[in-house]
Amino acid sequence: MRIVVLAGGIGGARFLRGLKKAAPDAAITVIGNTGDDIHLFGLKVCPDLDTVMYTLGGGINEEQGWGREDETFKVKEELAAYGVGPEWFGLGDRDFATHIVRTQMLAAGYPLSAVTEALCERWQPGVRLIPMSDDRVETHVAVDLDGERKAVHFQEYWVRLRAAVDAHAIVPVGADQAKPAPGVLEAIADADVILFPPSNPVVSVGTILAVPGIREAIAEAGVPVVGLSPIVGDAPVRGMADKVLAAVGVDSTAAAVAEHYGSGLLDGWLVDTVDAATVERVETAGIRCRAIPLMMTDLDAAAAMAREALSLAEEVRA
Amino acid sequence: MRIVVLAGGIGGARFLRGLKKAAPDAAITVIGNTGDDIHLFGLKVCPDLDTVMYTLGGGINEEQGWGREDETFKVKEELAAYGVGPEWFGLGDRDFATHIVRTQMLAAGYPLSAVTEALCERWQPGVRLIPMSDDRVETHVAVDLDGERKAVHFQEYWVRLRAAVDAHAIVPVGADQAKPAPGVLEAIADADVILFPPSNPVVSVGTILAVPGIREAIAEAGVPVVGLSPIVGDAPVRGMADKVLAAVGVDSTAAAVAEHYGSGLLDGWLVDTVDAATVERVETAGIRCRAIPLMMTDLDAAAAMAREALSLAEEVRA
Repeated sequence: MRIVVLAGGIGGARFLRGLKKAAPDAAITVIGNTGDDIHLFGLKVCPDLDTVMYTLGGGINEEQGWGREDETFKVKEELAAYGVGPEWFGLGDRDFATHIVRTQMLAAGYPLSAVTEALCERWQPGVRLIPMSDDRVETHVAVDLDGERKAVHFQEYWVRLRAAVDAHAIVPVGADQAKPAPGVLEAIADADVILFPPSNPVVSVGTILAVPGIREAIAEAGVPVVGLSPIVGDAPVRGMADKVLAAVGVDSTAAAVAEHYGSGLLDGWLVDTVDAATVERVETAGIRCRAIPLMMTDLDAAAAMAREALSLAEEVRA
Repeated sequence: MRIVVLAGGIGGARFLRGLKKAAPDAAITVIGNTGDDIHLFGLKVCPDLDTVMYTLGGGINEEQGWGREDETFKVKEELAAYGVGPEWFGLGDRDFATHIVRTQMLAAGYPLSAVTEALCERWQPGVRLIPMSDDRVETHVAVDLDGERKAVHFQEYWVRLRAAVDAHAIVPVGADQAKPAPGVLEAIADADVILFPPSNPVVSVGTILAVPGIREAIAEAGVPVVGLSPIVGDAPVRGMADKVLAAVGVDSTAAAVAEHYGSGLLDGWLVDTVDAATVERVETAGIRCRAIPLMMTDLDAAAAMAREALSLAEEVRA
């Protein structure tokens, strides 16, 4: 079975770990969000790609869900001693090496997709990880700061401001000019199932869908497309998805997110058991829906969710 | 008193520490060798500038004489795990930050001299440190490897090969097209004394002198130029200077090095007491010479050497 997954960071990565366990023989292609990529200290940092790579490759800091395990912060301390920031972005020493290798390869002319493949040779994530695009896409968030409407980088909004101010707009700058990375459209066309993990529907999955050609390819693939709600009981499972959902005019409910994707894209939708009452609304929107436990408390829970997603896909197909 | 010093790495840095103690009120300008600069992992590394900066700024690893104290090597370990080398060059985590800041500033368009000044704002070395040139100069060494004559980067010769093979030629690639960095010629013209510390006469001081205009400016400055022999008792005090001296046809003796600089450039020369017998030969070559202890065993010894150099300069002037 060939499965394509559109993934953001932590939620996507943990779901993928479950999916690998649930479908050990499947060929899994992950299309990774690069809209939250950022240049820091002259280095290219790809937080979502790295979170997937480290999580599936066994190098992730399990507690925080991003960054490397057994990490130290000497480089960052020294940069701060030089007065060089930002200090709000937590790059550890081990993590720095990834960004150094990536930046060096990009400077040598390799596209991000080739660089990602090279980095994965070390990590052996057990999936094929492709960035959504080799072109630069940068998610900006419009906020009011110091009495002025400003566009800040998504990482600045998410990490520095901790989404504590309202987001008025989310703009994936460059997306309209970006081309899907080599292999993305082919993987979608060849897929037996396409899954949207419980990643952020706006700044993760939404950004991937904003690359011209990807949404269309998924809609036209003719295979079941099944998603899992990142909202449980009207609140994001993790992170601050409600803030960016509000920016695009979507309520923070499992049903509203399903309707946001729409029946033109989505065939099946999994909501948490606490949201069982919403199943009918989703189905009315033309999307087959089931309520199952959606908390990825451990690998088994994530694997159970993946099995339910694959099972719903088969139900849709039949 | 305005003192200009042409410095390489460890020997130059330790001498400068002594000079600062010997002449606490002097305005010291250090013209640093950049011929051993190297690009590693996409980062610009300036070993000699950093050794001077760390030594005078209190951040040096005293035992090894280069690199940072209290150093760790996580980044390098991780780079190796990615299969990215070279592994023979020992960059520590703290040290990496310096190269990251430097590379970022260079990429932003600042010349190396401005970058060096910015780095020194943190380290406060107590001297004005200027790279010999903002232009790229790279010392290559011609060696026989695998039955072939090859040119290798100086660091590869010095660090990887440990100068274990003969050097057939030393070529400061790019030096003939390089311009002295802003401030270099001005500092020389304004100097009261010019000193050559016991740095390598070929690949450190020699490379600086290879930048068109610097040798001429020193010769025409009309002030005492005094050097200290890096060779004591026919052997280099440190490093493998004999190998690179042989490449330029100079014997590894204190007198031969003085003659190599020549009386057109050098007014005074300090040799070690074990080389007292050679004083006459040096003076016959038209260079005033004294024999004093030249082993920089500690700060006081280095300061005593600096005092002797300044005293010889005054003797020359009178």
